[in-house]
Amino acid sequence: MTSSAPAPGDSPAPEAGRTRLSPEQRRAQLLDLGVELLATRSLEELSIDVLAETAGVSRGLLYHYFGGKQGFYAAVVQHAADDLYARTAPPETGQPVERLRASVRAYVDYVADSHTGYRSLVRAAAGGNEELRAIYDATFAALAERFFTADPHGIAFPDTPPVRLLVRAWQAMVEDLVLTWSQEPAGISRDALLDLVSASLPALLDLLPHDLGGGAPGASSGAGPG
Amino acid sequence: MTSSAPAPGDSPAPEAGRTRLSPEQRRAQLLDLGVELLATRSLEELSIDVLAETAGVSRGLLYHYFGGKQGFYAAVVQHAADDLYARTAPPETGQPVERLRASVRAYVDYVADSHTGYRSLVRAAAGGNEELRAIYDATFAALAERFFTADPHGIAFPDTPPVRLLVRAWQAMVEDLVLTWSQEPAGISRDALLDLVSASLPALLDLLPHDLGGGAPGASSGAGPG
Repeated sequence: MTSSAPAPGDSPAPEAGRTRLSPEQRRAQLLDLGVELLATRSLEELSIDVLAETAGVSRGLLYHYFGGKQGFYAAVVQHAADDLYARTAPPETGQPVERLRASVRAYVDYVADSHTGYRSLVRAAAGGNEELRAIYDATFAALAERFFTADPHGIAFPDTPPVRLLVRAWQAMVEDLVLTWSQEPAGISRDALLDLVSASLPALLDLLPHDLGGGAPGASSGAGPG
Repeated sequence: MTSSAPAPGDSPAPEAGRTRLSPEQRRAQLLDLGVELLATRSLEELSIDVLAETAGVSRGLLYHYFGGKQGFYAAVVQHAADDLYARTAPPETGQPVERLRASVRAYVDYVADSHTGYRSLVRAAAGGNEELRAIYDATFAALAERFFTADPHGIAFPDTPPVRLLVRAWQAMVEDLVLTWSQEPAGISRDALLDLVSASLPALLDLLPHDLGGGAPGASSGAGPG
């Protein structure tokens, strides 16, 4: 992508030897760097100073782009959430169980590769930071939406309130399972974890009475437990 | 319970018309009141001022007993956690599935009756308040311990790291499920919720390979899924 738009009036003059980037490119580069830094440290540890030093830009430029530390945090977290959502897109074709497994694999890979940053996001969202909480909730909801017909690439489950309640609780379980496993695998291989997570959602839906939308997709329609 | 112990030297003189309580009784009364208030408001909303006014005691007495707002919060949360732990004790006899169901019923009743306070505890613990987090983690771990042989009244599951990982993740799921259901039941009756939660743990353990400790207690030993 090229841009001939002039830099904002208050941006610093380009320095010799530094690649000339458009403001959009520079902003995207800073967000990528923030996500990368968050993979190995928590939000509290990710300061504007560390970022400015690592990126080789001034604090002033960071404030220019993001309006301060809170704005930078929110932009980094939104960027990471968008990345997580994009990476975990299930393949558009295939059996539901295969598509679920592919999506779960991408989620496990993402969390395992950046669990410090992911955990700090979970804590920040839960702890009352409203802006981060809103990003977290929207991402959580968007991931759930993939299971319902509203998403054209979704894995179609019956769209009933009880199924939605159970999918949400399953997401909470998977988040805890994968975060804990990332710190201490407990003798479970990545493939065994994938098997477990992928099989758990159909197994849980099978426990819901059929009149509440229960029954795993593709499962036999035999008599359920009483 | 009666106590003839003298009140601490710096406690205020008893007022006319107020029941004379020992310091231990007064402290326990204040904690009970704190838990009761937390059932309908969050930790942030539970101030020393509100408590003092509701209890009809001075701010000074509250500081005397708890050393300040943070100390009072921690004492209330510990008291609530002890209460949750005591109420959810499974019956000492019966089939594992019945004992699990009785314990789950007590948990659902507790959370449903005080979900605002419980949610604020979860958020406070997750959000970086180290003292509250430690109480939450210890309670979460103590509840899990009931599933293993270390607890004489436990519901014996194979005590392997993968089973512990899965029990912990199941707890996270149940917490989310019951908290969400408390706000919006989604057409699920309390009995149907109990059925679902009670059946979900054996179903999840059944998904673990047997060499990792999987298989529900009392489940048939038929061939598992590939």
